[in-house]
Amino acid sequence: MTDRLGSPLAEPLFDRLLIVGLGLIGSSMARAARSMNLARTIVAADASPAVRARVAELGIADVVADDAAAGARDADLVVLCVPVGACGAVAAEIAPVLKPGAIVSDVGSVKGSVVAQVQPVLPDHAHFVPAHPVAGTEQSGPDAGFATLFQNRWSILTPPEGTDPQAIERVRAFWEGLGSNVEVMTPTHHDLVLAITSHVPHLIAYCIVATAEDLEQVTEQEVVKYSAGGFRDFTRIAASDPTMWRDVFLNNKDAVLEMLGRFNEDLSALQRAIRWGDGETLFNLFARTRTIRRGIIDLGQETAEPDFGRRKPGEA
Amino acid sequence: MTDRLGSPLAEPLFDRLLIVGLGLIGSSMARAARSMNLARTIVAADASPAVRARVAELGIADVVADDAAAGARDADLVVLCVPVGACGAVAAEIAPVLKPGAIVSDVGSVKGSVVAQVQPVLPDHAHFVPAHPVAGTEQSGPDAGFATLFQNRWSILTPPEGTDPQAIERVRAFWEGLGSNVEVMTPTHHDLVLAITSHVPHLIAYCIVATAEDLEQVTEQEVVKYSAGGFRDFTRIAASDPTMWRDVFLNNKDAVLEMLGRFNEDLSALQRAIRWGDGETLFNLFARTRTIRRGIIDLGQETAEPDFGRRKPGEA
Repeated sequence: MTDRLGSPLAEPLFDRLLIVGLGLIGSSMARAARSMNLARTIVAADASPAVRARVAELGIADVVADDAAAGARDADLVVLCVPVGACGAVAAEIAPVLKPGAIVSDVGSVKGSVVAQVQPVLPDHAHFVPAHPVAGTEQSGPDAGFATLFQNRWSILTPPEGTDPQAIERVRAFWEGLGSNVEVMTPTHHDLVLAITSHVPHLIAYCIVATAEDLEQVTEQEVVKYSAGGFRDFTRIAASDPTMWRDVFLNNKDAVLEMLGRFNEDLSALQRAIRWGDGETLFNLFARTRTIRRGIIDLGQETAEPDFGRRKPGEA
Repeated sequence: MTDRLGSPLAEPLFDRLLIVGLGLIGSSMARAARSMNLARTIVAADASPAVRARVAELGIADVVADDAAAGARDADLVVLCVPVGACGAVAAEIAPVLKPGAIVSDVGSVKGSVVAQVQPVLPDHAHFVPAHPVAGTEQSGPDAGFATLFQNRWSILTPPEGTDPQAIERVRAFWEGLGSNVEVMTPTHHDLVLAITSHVPHLIAYCIVATAEDLEQVTEQEVVKYSAGGFRDFTRIAASDPTMWRDVFLNNKDAVLEMLGRFNEDLSALQRAIRWGDGETLFNLFARTRTIRRGIIDLGQETAEPDFGRRKPGEA
């Protein structure tokens, strides 16, 4: 892999960065922050002893703290990279030791609920700037991370009203330093956008894989063999981390149910068209969905190669 | 691309092969049949003058026929690579000129309907062996094909009862020559298996992309920007050929409605779990869907690389 992160900063943005949770996102952040010289000292904290040991082995942090509170002492930026449902508890743990002016951020896929959990427990002398990098793969854990994960992806900041503008700018600079484009929006709008671009697609993928698994007329071996017909693309998404996704759905209930309601209506209309042999409705819908893909490819969010550039059989 | 098709046959399986419809599948077949020496002469027919001209330019067939009937004269094997809804008409066109012992096959994604359309119009002196290669990409047309498309994929034969066993064996040898694994099953079972592994996944993907496009609270630009959260994987499938897919749903109505009914039930259960905050139901389902993906990777139907082996940003 050629490193195309650009040149590291001459001076780090933060003296001491604490990353809590060294999964795919947290460990990618540690790697990228070091490559780009975003922090003088990178501290890692994780509730799992196995993850802490592996992070020490990998050497992707300067310090591995025993717990989040120990790591948060003297931290200038703390980023919570834990499942959405755990953010409040971690914030409460670090709150007593945060120094004046410390910035707290997170990477949760839901923002309204994280703001509601974290904001009330932090001391007034700390700044909270919630963030969500829209990036990832289906893999989990500290070994799955890589420094270019955020490159050319969008990260969304959802600072509550009244947040210190300087703190927002420093978090923006941090994400830009990680290679990301940055947008600012309200937590409510974020949760609606992500419900349709991420949460409902994941729910549907999990669902169809489970439906297939449960069939009594079709064996699992048949599902596996003939998955190249479209099904296998859903299995990647349905291989994502179960804890993270349970928390997403529990914490973005309203927006997910709203989008799911619309999807169900649209699917019922298609189902009806199939039942009544209405080919025109089917064709018209199938013909118009190509344009969004074009936009995604043009924006560099996807490769134009067929099959996502999967290697063709026989290719080296 | 390294050619790993193996060695071409010493003697061709068929003297004269006619391929009707030179889209992704037909043009891949022409290329692979030539590489592997499966036919002495490859004849191409296509209803579109533009496609005929392009096939002549590409040089992937020995002869470009003016129409299917002209091409079918003297053919030993005719393969219909047209949308499922067009199979009956093409079969009727070639029926009068088919020579005794000629074999007719197809590549349709639905088998019950194709058998019902084609079987009655063919002369008794021809053999009909329906086939379905479970392979493809989201691209269409003669330029999109490639010789290794069928390599390590499964092709399903669904010969009607009473079909000449020798004809079945010759079609099996043809598909194996194209690099495919071959299975035989009834048309009914085929249509049920493909409904869940291919047809319903396509319908869902088309549907969610359309739902997203129609939202008034979220702009198309936002959907595109934040598509890396899962949505973009659906857009590939939803970029497939609209005519082909319209025909699939019109011609596999019963199995698709049956599978869609099950999917809807399962989705309603998940929706209910979200509404009532039932994290255990969500977690248990999300945790068990990983095993099918493992099977797909183990069987070589998918790459284990994250993100389908999409190149990471910064990678050469």
